[in-house]
Amino acid sequence: MTAFARRARLVQQSAIREFLALAGDPAITSFAGGYPDPTLFPVDELHKIFDELLTPANAAALQYTASDGIPLLREQVAARLTRDGMPCTPDDILITQGGQQGLELTAKLFLDDGDVVITERPTFLGALIAFNPYEPQYVSVPLDEHGLDVEALEEVLRTTRRVKFVYTVPDYQNPTGRSLSLERRRRLVELAEEFDVMVLEDTPYRELRYEGERLPAIKSLDRTGRVIHVGSFSKILVPGFRLGWVLATPEIREKLVLLKLGADTQNGTLNMHAAAAYLAGFDIEEHIRAMLPVYRHKRDLMLATMAEHFPEGITWTHAQGGLFTWVTFPESLDAAAFQRDVLIPRAGVIIVPGAPFFTEDPAPAHHARMSFSGVPDDRLVAGITAMGALLREALR
Amino acid sequence: MTAFARRARLVQQSAIREFLALAGDPAITSFAGGYPDPTLFPVDELHKIFDELLTPANAAALQYTASDGIPLLREQVAARLTRDGMPCTPDDILITQGGQQGLELTAKLFLDDGDVVITERPTFLGALIAFNPYEPQYVSVPLDEHGLDVEALEEVLRTTRRVKFVYTVPDYQNPTGRSLSLERRRRLVELAEEFDVMVLEDTPYRELRYEGERLPAIKSLDRTGRVIHVGSFSKILVPGFRLGWVLATPEIREKLVLLKLGADTQNGTLNMHAAAAYLAGFDIEEHIRAMLPVYRHKRDLMLATMAEHFPEGITWTHAQGGLFTWVTFPESLDAAAFQRDVLIPRAGVIIVPGAPFFTEDPAPAHHARMSFSGVPDDRLVAGITAMGALLREALR
Repeated sequence: MTAFARRARLVQQSAIREFLALAGDPAITSFAGGYPDPTLFPVDELHKIFDELLTPANAAALQYTASDGIPLLREQVAARLTRDGMPCTPDDILITQGGQQGLELTAKLFLDDGDVVITERPTFLGALIAFNPYEPQYVSVPLDEHGLDVEALEEVLRTTRRVKFVYTVPDYQNPTGRSLSLERRRRLVELAEEFDVMVLEDTPYRELRYEGERLPAIKSLDRTGRVIHVGSFSKILVPGFRLGWVLATPEIREKLVLLKLGADTQNGTLNMHAAAAYLAGFDIEEHIRAMLPVYRHKRDLMLATMAEHFPEGITWTHAQGGLFTWVTFPESLDAAAFQRDVLIPRAGVIIVPGAPFFTEDPAPAHHARMSFSGVPDDRLVAGITAMGALLREALR
Repeated sequence: MTAFARRARLVQQSAIREFLALAGDPAITSFAGGYPDPTLFPVDELHKIFDELLTPANAAALQYTASDGIPLLREQVAARLTRDGMPCTPDDILITQGGQQGLELTAKLFLDDGDVVITERPTFLGALIAFNPYEPQYVSVPLDEHGLDVEALEEVLRTTRRVKFVYTVPDYQNPTGRSLSLERRRRLVELAEEFDVMVLEDTPYRELRYEGERLPAIKSLDRTGRVIHVGSFSKILVPGFRLGWVLATPEIREKLVLLKLGADTQNGTLNMHAAAAYLAGFDIEEHIRAMLPVYRHKRDLMLATMAEHFPEGITWTHAQGGLFTWVTFPESLDAAAFQRDVLIPRAGVIIVPGAPFFTEDPAPAHHARMSFSGVPDDRLVAGITAMGALLREALR
């Protein structure tokens, strides 16, 4: 098969794009996207920043710049990561087009056709879409209430050749909302050393912590440079800037910078200046602290409404942070069919059916990822209540 | 070899990054980058646009959006391309992270290891950096004062297997400044049909026309969907937004959108809204018309200063548009060594030595690409004059 024909299988993912397109319809209540709440965006502060940036004296903010990102922003990111237990300098940081690009560039650097990527089961769909063009084999490892099962991981590493990296979202995972325990983080780093594989740590939700202890990033436990740490401003500032970062060893970072240069030359200069000015001139930690009660409230409201209106036989995760709960229906319920035939036409509600979060084919069909972040309270309650009634009917 | 080891060869390109990093040094006169003149950026208009965009009612401009770009911007791009002889609708357009991403996504879609890409000789270095990770073989076809030699191309197509596409910059090519004649454009499309290969048409300089006729885009001659047309706002608006576009058949576009989704989710939302507002609220054609005399003047000044101060035995191209002239030194002069040992230390001037624009190894060392766009007049004259004196000395 040609590259063109093989990559055409990616088109299967378009089913998801189609219903995500519905999310823009005001008649639709969407629990599908992992969208942050736009009422939390620091619009006034950004207005002030752009007002100062957009002057003839600052024309450099509209010009080309370096592929690894402007020094001002790399300094701010390095300072935040250092405070989070990952001592580093601006020269260790690569600014990327959102966290997503960090995943894609890592795959591009490490993967040959047929190499193995180990994922959590279920795992972030967007990571699979980033990795797929490099045609890896996937081996998935179960995830429980303490995150990735490291004993099962050890067994996989012991019996599988050509493993290049383990992909994990350790904090409030997408799609399950679960976190990796401290003990397992330590064990994961040990296993990476023992079996000489990389760990790709993806942390977009890390700072959205509503309860429970702050756990060290896996990167902060790394002593041998085997952890590539990916982060994002999408959930803590705004997604529309498309700004993320990668922290890796100098050798790996240099290669990622060159792949970034080939991929898109650089990130948007103006957005990088705006984010750097925000971090320098305002208190992002205070901004994040102010967001947490809003999301905690939304999570509590969604889970309480589910408890009240969902029929028996359905379970869901209690995420201590992040944006998602992972819902498990009785095995008899096909979530995609239920959404298509019942939930959208009769309630105008969309969710993400769980199958695409699994790497096996056929995948379990009786799960869904639901986000509590982007919907006003009244519509959230109305949507979950309507969904509960339709589930009762469907499962009768 | 592993992917990691093979891709490490990309690091050789870092020699270029190192001296491009010098371009930010105010003591350096840089003819190296293809930077537009920042005094031409419409800063006041953009200030007004961001002032209106950054309000709580417009929070959607900071939120996630569709992978193929916001409809408002795709409408504007489709209207401009239609006026330029490429009738299309907003649904035919993919917005990319600069033109560079259009090149990378096309390579990702079409290339398997060992497939053949045909390039002009010399060709745009950045395209090679985009294509290299997919490990194609390159066959280069000579380029003369009428652009790509289509007779030589026909011979290559007749004798070469696994050709996937011909990469060309038909208007004011990077690095030579030369354009493809109308007759050859027609022949190129015929050959693409006859040999069933794609044409990747890259047009960042298309609208920077200082003299000569406006020629139809290759895409406008395409009747069978074999031309992928890539464009960019970097030279006609601002590079710092990182906005470009791809026009291709619906089948190809859909696959490129999915690769874009995996690569970086989407372009910056705010930048797309700002560009769309600029195109809707201001007259970009008038803006471009006002830029042309400035660049024409700079070109004339650079070429006249070269004619006055460069020693005999050196030739350069007379570009009818774009940003570059291509300089050919006597074969005895190694441009990279001259720059490193003489030009930078003694004159503080940087150029781009020509070798990386060739696909063969070893490549001709006695060329350089020089840009006339980004340097104030007095420094341009001083830099070229100093370079001329050093060349006289070196060639004595």
